Amino acid sequence: MRAFFSRLQPSYISRDDLVMSLRITLWNEFLHEQHDPAVKAIYPNGIHDTLAEAIRQQIPTAHIHTATLDQPDHGLPDDLLDQTDVLAWWGHKAHNQVRDDIVEKIHARILNGMGALFLHSAHFAKPFKKLMGTSCRIHWREAAEPERLFIVHPAHPIADGLPTHIDISHEEMYGEFFDIPTPDELIMLSWFQGGNVFRSCCTWTRGKGKIVYFRPGHETHPTYHKPEIQRIICNALRWAAPTSNSPYTSRATHEPQPLSPFPH
Amino acid sequence: MRAFFSRLQPSYISRDDLVMSLRITLWNEFLHEQHDPAVKAIYPNGIHDTLAEAIRQQIPTAHIHTATLDQPDHGLPDDLLDQTDVLAWWGHKAHNQVRDDIVEKIHARILNGMGALFLHSAHFAKPFKKLMGTSCRIHWREAAEPERLFIVHPAHPIADGLPTHIDISHEEMYGEFFDIPTPDELIMLSWFQGGNVFRSCCTWTRGKGKIVYFRPGHETHPTYHKPEIQRIICNALRWAAPTSNSPYTSRATHEPQPLSPFPH
Amino acid sequence: MRAFFSRLQPSYISRDDLVMSLRITLWNEFLHEQHDPAVKAIYPNGIHDTLAEAIRQQIPTAHIHTATLDQPDHGLPDDLLDQTDVLAWWGHKAHNQVRDDIVEKIHARILNGMGALFLHSAHFAKPFKKLMGTSCRIHWREAAEPERLFIVHPAHPIADGLPTHIDISHEEMYGEFFDIPTPDELIMLSWFQGGNVFRSCCTWTRGKGKIVYFRPGHETHPTYHKPEIQRIICNALRWAAPTSNSPYTSRATHEPQPLSPFPH
Amino acid sequence: MRAFFSRLQPSYISRDDLVMSLRITLWNEFLHEQHDPAVKAIYPNGIHDTLAEAIRQQIPTAHIHTATLDQPDHGLPDDLLDQTDVLAWWGHKAHNQVRDDIVEKIHARILNGMGALFLHSAHFAKPFKKLMGTSCRIHWREAAEPERLFIVHPAHPIADGLPTHIDISHEEMYGEFFDIPTPDELIMLSWFQGGNVFRSCCTWTRGKGKIVYFRPGHETHPTYHKPEIQRIICNALRWAAPTSNSPYTSRATHEPQPLSPFPH
Repeated sequence: MRAFFSRLQPSYISRDDLVMSLRITLWNEFLHEQHDPAVKAIYPNGIHDTLAEAIRQQIPTAHIHTATLDQPDHGLPDDLLDQTDVLAWWGHKAHNQVRDDIVEKIHARILNGMGALFLHSAHFAKPFKKLMGTSCRIHWREAAEPERLFIVHPAHPIADGLPTHIDISHEEMYGEFFDIPTPDELIMLSWFQGGNVFRSCCTWTRGKGKIVYFRPGHETHPTYHKPEIQRIICNALRWAAPTSNSPYTSRATHEPQPLSPFPH
Repeated sequence: MRAFFSRLQPSYISRDDLVMSLRITLWNEFLHEQHDPAVKAIYPNGIHDTLAEAIRQQIPTAHIHTATLDQPDHGLPDDLLDQTDVLAWWGHKAHNQVRDDIVEKIHARILNGMGALFLHSAHFAKPFKKLMGTSCRIHWREAAEPERLFIVHPAHPIADGLPTHIDISHEEMYGEFFDIPTPDELIMLSWFQGGNVFRSCCTWTRGKGKIVYFRPGHETHPTYHKPEIQRIICNALRWAAPTSNSPYTSRATHEPQPLSPFPH
Repeated sequence: MRAFFSRLQPSYISRDDLVMSLRITLWNEFLHEQHDPAVKAIYPNGIHDTLAEAIRQQIPTAHIHTATLDQPDHGLPDDLLDQTDVLAWWGHKAHNQVRDDIVEKIHARILNGMGALFLHSAHFAKPFKKLMGTSCRIHWREAAEPERLFIVHPAHPIADGLPTHIDISHEEMYGEFFDIPTPDELIMLSWFQGGNVFRSCCTWTRGKGKIVYFRPGHETHPTYHKPEIQRIICNALRWAAPTSNSPYTSRATHEPQPLSPFPH
Repeated sequence: MRAFFSRLQPSYISRDDLVMSLRITLWNEFLHEQHDPAVKAIYPNGIHDTLAEAIRQQIPTAHIHTATLDQPDHGLPDDLLDQTDVLAWWGHKAHNQVRDDIVEKIHARILNGMGALFLHSAHFAKPFKKLMGTSCRIHWREAAEPERLFIVHPAHPIADGLPTHIDISHEEMYGEFFDIPTPDELIMLSWFQGGNVFRSCCTWTRGKGKIVYFRPGHETHPTYHKPEIQRIICNALRWAAPTSNSPYTSRATHEPQPLSPFPH
């Protein structure tokens, strides 16, 4: 084969460089892991800690911060939100304990460009429901059954490097109808052995913010230790990074400014 | 403000690094520039040459190849297509001279992941029409009138770094109804002084390939010399780059393999 | 339950009946028309009355009810909402006076299948914003300038019977960026003489409910007297009608039931 | 012009008439049923005959015509296509025997508003592939296994009157990745016992034509005898009916005219 281009670097520098300075905040309810020994055995320092470690491996240049429900302001002061490119969110049994004023701030920040990744039971998290405008209800079953994730959008960056499908031996079932707005992009579908399907990886844009929902991750299963699942989460965090049009992004070359009001 | 993350590098490394090895092939019909002195005055070495120079400035790490209609195989041998991450296409009056066998190869390559950027009158190019499956017809008027491009998807990477709208003082008008499939993403709308609107920047996915259509660029106007237009084109080329799921991409870590047949 | 509409035929079968018995509630803020003589001259009995008359002409089998802000419960008691197939909404300067508990009921009813048509400045109405999850902000200018609506989705039922474009001699300008979720369907684009464009007719689905936004209709212009505009509104009302899957629809063959909770 | 359907009323007005006079052409390859006794036992007069009977029951006002591969011009003369509102298509082993000139006519007619319903193995039919622009490849398995169809768009007219899911005891499996353009609307997902999922009911618009793909219907199973499946097919035929903007529709009040060329 005749070479039309110079050879690739053997150490091909990956998309990581795009997000050399990607600033990620991982928020976790962090209750199951403290109060349920079975969960603690899987995630000794919390789901957020397991995810942080995985991201450090896959995106070595990322800056990672973690925050939990029981911290002051749920660990999410204004300065942190202003410096966050993408916020990941895991919550389950304490959705109602999340303060509404903080939900408002998160919502406003996402409309201004902060990316957001909602994981598993965060389909019922206050910020997600406020962004979606629907009930976000699902069908579900705790049967520790096999789940298979199929890629239905292989061109999408979130599917980068993945096989055609991924098997998880034991997971909680989430089933359709999932009451969400039509996703802008549908990337993965789940099959469950017990007879259900689910739109498991979806994206939306709201304002300047990119939003991802990714289904797997019930606290009683070691799903977030699986390399393929970690890869999806890292891909999603990269994809959700703001463009330089967002006033607070790490890519902005100018100082963050207070938002000028619309001329309305 | 308290710093939660380490400072950004002053030499913020841009998205260019993503595409360190982005391999771009610029295809141009290259007839107007040779036969019409007014066009030659604007694009002395062809539209492809002007675009190549602009891309070199904005994506210094890119590998750029150009090809034209009158070359053997229209300058698009198999090896080149196999080594191309994104193909840009400008054609106008000689769409019918493009050989069908080469159209087939381009089409197959796009379904396997090669990105494609169709510029201006390439809305009628054979590969574009084959991908779309519609007539791709438009309304049009040559009145050298003002055009204003509005961003309607500010979160999209193709809109990165752009102002809310871009003015072009003199352009050909393209007007709706534009007979295309519903775009997966609608990024820009054009306003024309004479009373028309147009969906001017649209994306689609076909198979593993990402496709962009971008309207401006009539050969009698110096549109491709405008920095904002060049920025859009560079953004589009980056966005359309294949993921590593595509067998021939520059991001692939494995050797390109002949496509295995589907199990059907 | 008080009946606001005549009883359904027990032997409902076909789509014909959908149109025959379409139950429409027109809600209007109804302030400009009472307090501004110039507006009263155009809409003597209110915008809702003009629209009701037009709908009676074009959908003779429809049942039409009107309601206004200053009525008890804004004229929207539970029984009426339960018997409404599609709710149209016009509001402008008193969005904040709409009671939150009624907004909640409207929102819940839409998720359960009631259609909704939001007109003009209702882009900022509380129910619309709650459904969208975004700021719904726009750019605007009161210059009584020409607007031209282009159909970009000619296959859509809302475009039925319309020409390729519709001219309005004097209207308020609404311009992009319009901060809405990506529409499920984009049906019309507006051109404004002053140099702006707008996504003027958009649809979304939320839960079982179909939602339409339609831009024209500033109170100081006789836009709603135009036959083409009336046609669009009638088309939109028909399109937004619930399927028989919705518990309260006029097409339902069973008695409305309290919603059973999801098994979550 | 030979009349295949009774004349339209000159005073057509409302949507009622759309249903009353819906003109449906059912095209069937009609080979399995003639040559395979097991298939003939299920569909003695062909799949088209079974479907025609079902449609007559559910849409009593419809005009139904059938056509098969072995008829002159595959039973699809110009006059018939010009008088067809929606064309349904079932084909499997003889896709390549369908004449290209007839495919061109079907394609052109769909862009001008004729609806199209592609059933089961028609994912590989020439007209479908030409409309899609992709390979339309799937994974598949003949294991006579259980399939469950889930509604994921309950507001859509094609889901009208259906339960939340539909079970088919024995069907051929079709699995993702299904290489189609992103559907404009995704209405149903299939679960298969053997471990696969599929986007089983999808819609697209191409030009003025509405297109539906619906998966079930392998010739060795009595799927088209199931009432819920028949209901879906009838809903799809109604939904795909052209608006009065299409020159040949039964809803058009003017005489069909040769298409005027675009002003390009």
